[in-house]
Amino acid sequence: MLSSGEISVSSDKRTQFISITRQIVEFVDRSGWRDGVLTVYVPHTTAAVTINENADPDVARDMEWFSDELIPRSRHFHHSEGNSDAHIKASFFGSSVQVIVREGKLWLGTWQGIYFCEFDGPRERKMFVAFS
Amino acid sequence: MLSSGEISVSSDKRTQFISITRQIVEFVDRSGWRDGVLTVYVPHTTAAVTINENADPDVARDMEWFSDELIPRSRHFHHSEGNSDAHIKASFFGSSVQVIVREGKLWLGTWQGIYFCEFDGPRERKMFVAFS
Amino acid sequence: MLSSGEISVSSDKRTQFISITRQIVEFVDRSGWRDGVLTVYVPHTTAAVTINENADPDVARDMEWFSDELIPRSRHFHHSEGNSDAHIKASFFGSSVQVIVREGKLWLGTWQGIYFCEFDGPRERKMFVAFS
Repeated sequence: MLSSGEISVSSDKRTQFISITRQIVEFVDRSGWRDGVLTVYVPHTTAAVTINENADPDVARDMEWFSDELIPRSRHFHHSEGNSDAHIKASFFGSSVQVIVREGKLWLGTWQGIYFCEFDGPRERKMFVAFS
Repeated sequence: MLSSGEISVSSDKRTQFISITRQIVEFVDRSGWRDGVLTVYVPHTTAAVTINENADPDVARDMEWFSDELIPRSRHFHHSEGNSDAHIKASFFGSSVQVIVREGKLWLGTWQGIYFCEFDGPRERKMFVAFS
Repeated sequence: MLSSGEISVSSDKRTQFISITRQIVEFVDRSGWRDGVLTVYVPHTTAAVTINENADPDVARDMEWFSDELIPRSRHFHHSEGNSDAHIKASFFGSSVQVIVREGKLWLGTWQGIYFCEFDGPRERKMFVAFS
């Protein structure tokens, strides 16, 4: 049984929350994982992953907007690439989420979806998934 | 052996950090889990879970107060339910924590406790726990 | 096979991001862990752990600076020890990170390193690691 793998995601804005729930569900289906804990991991330092509302797209939009309000790009940072705000956002939201899997299904709450959080797009990105 | 389960928690304020350490310890005791990693997961999108000081209740109070200061309800959000601040707080604190279990005991630091973080209460809530 | 263990870290500033990637890699090597998920856990309530850029030290410096800007020590907190800001920072960055291990190697992104986040130093600290 496969115990880890990789999925791809493309962003088209600098700050963008992209639902990846369907991709993760399909990955778990294909992998045959039954009962355990799924880790979804972002191998980038200017992106993150979070779990939040999957129904009203305004929630993702508000999170994008507020992230940029709270941690603006124009702050007086040292890092020469000019994207320190994106690095900080990445650490605030976090590099991985864990979801319990029961009988092969993601045990999410009714309104929960999994979001890839882009903070320095547009870019081609990937995510690692593992089961334990 | 049971590998996952559910616990309940009630909040009585809009923003409230509630210690759930005792409930988690009892759950691990009943489950017979010995050595591994415990995941405590919140299946809601306006609540979270965190680990912090268990001794002085003022720490939880300061976290409640500062969360509302930093991410106020009155911000100009799009989401029509008027609780976008609660969704953002949920993603900042995070949907799960992991605690190492050794010989059937939670391997917490001396001053650490596990807190359910309510950001849109009062409500009846639940949490999922799993062992891997 | 050892399934959990402990490492030490010393800070010499109040707020300080310290790379612990090498220590974690050595721990995984010594433990003989092959395929699964590594949990790195901080048993303190005024410190955290995060994953971020390992190349330019200015990124860690910017994260230290911005943390203190966003959550200043001088806020009007209740907690009498005067370090409520450090407790809040700890919960924002989080008490643990998970990294996938494949064939005995940490499956990190090219630019990723693991950082211990000190928010109330200087102190002698420890971290717990476990494999599942």
